[in-house]
Amino acid sequence: MIGATGRLGTAVNEALTGRGHQVLTVGRSAGDLRYDVADPAQVTALYDEVGAVDAVASAAGDVPYGRVTELKPEDYEAAFRGKVLSQIELVRQGTSRIAERGSFTVITGVLGRDPIPTGSAASMANGAVEAFVRAAAIEIAPQRINAVSPTVFTESIAKYGDFFPGIQPVDVAQVALAYVRSIEGAQTGQIYSLG
Amino acid sequence: MIGATGRLGTAVNEALTGRGHQVLTVGRSAGDLRYDVADPAQVTALYDEVGAVDAVASAAGDVPYGRVTELKPEDYEAAFRGKVLSQIELVRQGTSRIAERGSFTVITGVLGRDPIPTGSAASMANGAVEAFVRAAAIEIAPQRINAVSPTVFTESIAKYGDFFPGIQPVDVAQVALAYVRSIEGAQTGQIYSLG
Repeated sequence: MIGATGRLGTAVNEALTGRGHQVLTVGRSAGDLRYDVADPAQVTALYDEVGAVDAVASAAGDVPYGRVTELKPEDYEAAFRGKVLSQIELVRQGTSRIAERGSFTVITGVLGRDPIPTGSAASMANGAVEAFVRAAAIEIAPQRINAVSPTVFTESIAKYGDFFPGIQPVDVAQVALAYVRSIEGAQTGQIYSLG
Repeated sequence: MIGATGRLGTAVNEALTGRGHQVLTVGRSAGDLRYDVADPAQVTALYDEVGAVDAVASAAGDVPYGRVTELKPEDYEAAFRGKVLSQIELVRQGTSRIAERGSFTVITGVLGRDPIPTGSAASMANGAVEAFVRAAAIEIAPQRINAVSPTVFTESIAKYGDFFPGIQPVDVAQVALAYVRSIEGAQTGQIYSLG
């Protein structure tokens, strides 16, 4: 589980642990193992250290915010590396590491379908990840891959609510359930939209 | 018009010229002006040379093909630079250059919605561009932005048909019409899917 100590990652970790899964938490600055998956070489090192696993779940993805006219090419590159390439590498390098019928679950978000001002880099990243999920699914079978795409968390409304007027929030525990669904279910190539 | 000398670009150029538009063609190795828009600095130089225009249309976007397990991080980066960042930069740098009610029309493709094996980098790029278009549209108004997303061209079936079993091809002239629709119409944030 990458990004396991954030708000969402903590909830996913609890949901999975509660269902008897053995979860290894990975983060840049917290967790059982410390790796920055935005660096493809660190993804390799992570898989080398972890060894065999059944499933890989990611709740990590940093993107910069700003108006289209304020963002720089470097910001879009940062979004690509922080949320797109990082999760692609978890999959690309992971196919030879996870179980024969194992699964990948990655994170996107509502801005891929419903944009807000200052969110174009996040929208771009989410759209990229979702299209990659659909494409990878048809190649990696019987391994599976799905994306979880939540709106704003109920628990984050105080901080981020103003950016999402009229958008239905979603409890982080419900989002965690989508990870359970992806990992324990049989579907692949799906985008689980929540909220 | 960027990518104006390719199969699609030629058709778009003809359609626009036939309707009385004055078209300036831009390409890496052909066209009125020679620039590689995958380099943000060359986008700046292009706009500096061109001066005021009403609309920017792109039919250019290079992406590598290969199975997920064969592609390298550099291939996904190349797809990002060649089709995503290039078109984002045309928009980002273009808002201060085109007319107050001018338009951007960018190219994506069927693989964003309907993947094929070896197409994950293209899918990723198309998904990224389409989500960016929706996001940019709400920020740059009254300037407009739309994407054109064709399936395989009827004219290219002999070469690429085997990659698209059961997929309805589309005449390149019809795809060119979508550029006319985007440029002369009033819609924004749309993905014109063809085929």
